[in-house]
Amino acid sequence: MSESSLALAGHSGHAADANDTLRRLAQTIAARRGADPASSYVAKLLSRAPDAALKKVGEEAAEFIMACKDAELDDSAEDRARVVAEAADVWFHMLVAMSRYQLSGSDVLAELARREGLSGIAEKAARPDASPEVGD
Amino acid sequence: MSESSLALAGHSGHAADANDTLRRLAQTIAARRGADPASSYVAKLLSRAPDAALKKVGEEAAEFIMACKDAELDDSAEDRARVVAEAADVWFHMLVAMSRYQLSGSDVLAELARREGLSGIAEKAARPDASPEVGD
Amino acid sequence: MSESSLALAGHSGHAADANDTLRRLAQTIAARRGADPASSYVAKLLSRAPDAALKKVGEEAAEFIMACKDAELDDSAEDRARVVAEAADVWFHMLVAMSRYQLSGSDVLAELARREGLSGIAEKAARPDASPEVGD
Amino acid sequence: MSESSLALAGHSGHAADANDTLRRLAQTIAARRGADPASSYVAKLLSRAPDAALKKVGEEAAEFIMACKDAELDDSAEDRARVVAEAADVWFHMLVAMSRYQLSGSDVLAELARREGLSGIAEKAARPDASPEVGD
Repeated sequence: MSESSLALAGHSGHAADANDTLRRLAQTIAARRGADPASSYVAKLLSRAPDAALKKVGEEAAEFIMACKDAELDDSAEDRARVVAEAADVWFHMLVAMSRYQLSGSDVLAELARREGLSGIAEKAARPDASPEVGD
Repeated sequence: MSESSLALAGHSGHAADANDTLRRLAQTIAARRGADPASSYVAKLLSRAPDAALKKVGEEAAEFIMACKDAELDDSAEDRARVVAEAADVWFHMLVAMSRYQLSGSDVLAELARREGLSGIAEKAARPDASPEVGD
Repeated sequence: MSESSLALAGHSGHAADANDTLRRLAQTIAARRGADPASSYVAKLLSRAPDAALKKVGEEAAEFIMACKDAELDDSAEDRARVVAEAADVWFHMLVAMSRYQLSGSDVLAELARREGLSGIAEKAARPDASPEVGD
Repeated sequence: MSESSLALAGHSGHAADANDTLRRLAQTIAARRGADPASSYVAKLLSRAPDAALKKVGEEAAEFIMACKDAELDDSAEDRARVVAEAADVWFHMLVAMSRYQLSGSDVLAELARREGLSGIAEKAARPDASPEVGD
């Protein structure tokens, strides 16, 4: 993202295409279904679905929280790279878990886009619970 | 995503542009910085950053896990919509937390794309720990 | 606990009896079953069991993690009191969730005592997985 | 606990003394401080404190949540034993994390006893936030 000053190692400097990334992730995860759990981490997670991926979601969410707390202290490039790495771990394991229900990251972004498009007032009026919404 | 059969209410049927969604999310969150916490949910989270957003990450991660477990039982359209909604809640609160460090969802996807591009063997050789990687 | 220097407000200085506390907690939670959700927090959690208590477990676990990270910075009496308060929140909501299966904190401590009694080597030999154990 | 019908393997049938269990746990954890991380799991967690124990809290909390969801389906003795085992894992790793701040399970139970002793109304009047309380 151009407004980000984070220089990730190996990052080419221009934004990766998000649609392409999400599509390739879904394809890669799908391709690992049925692969040998001994040779593929994703196949291993899928062979004990959904619990294996979901316990990792809990672990990686804890690590994301800790990385953010650490980034509060100095907000160095290293701390910020760790926040991104932990976030990627959380999203990745969620994508593996969701693949079991034929869902992908595109579905998640579509839902976020849908909420974005609703005004805060209209959104609140339309649903009974108080779950948050972007433009709120 | 075209391979998804999920019919989300208000979902137009063709994929939302992920880049556009992530850019607008980052802009919306940034615009709420300094807004009145009494009238904006995001402003309220940001006014007590990072803890307010991070405790929501923990709560929403728990709800995502439960939604997946429920989807195991019948995998209905309703269950799958709930998995997507909870995933969106997790990602959204993570984006709010990350905004404090000038990071966005594009940074997370760029990191996932970077890992995708590395072969499993090369990736493993390059790092000491056993953190997972997509093509693994 | 005598080795703890934490001075909790209202704490009499000598240890509360743990057996008594766990028994009263189990009784109090059981007594709230069927009470009016509008007037009792526990009854409200139980009326939407197990999800209502479990999403709080996720939230309070996140807060416990953050309280510990904050305690790293200065380890003040206030920080330590917050660690204890968040830990109590986690345990309490777990006890509410477990009450649904006729389980109490005494069962958890009995399991911890059982593991304590096993030697690390014997324990490891007795089970296939690598879950941790106290005397390890 | 006598009201529990759970028959844990190796459980003698009468309640373990909770005070004794908590005291021995604190002693065991303290004794592992400075031990060889290669030969002791607790020493390994403590050598990378607090993050190593706290990421396990996140993982085990996720497993506790899943165990409870599974117990909803048939509530078998096996399911209930798993709920207890996962709860013990959560509590254990929290105790390891708390040991860094000279806090033990007795401090957590003392806090729960303190809340129990306060009437719901008095408790609410005494604190600004809406954190739950047992007799509520």
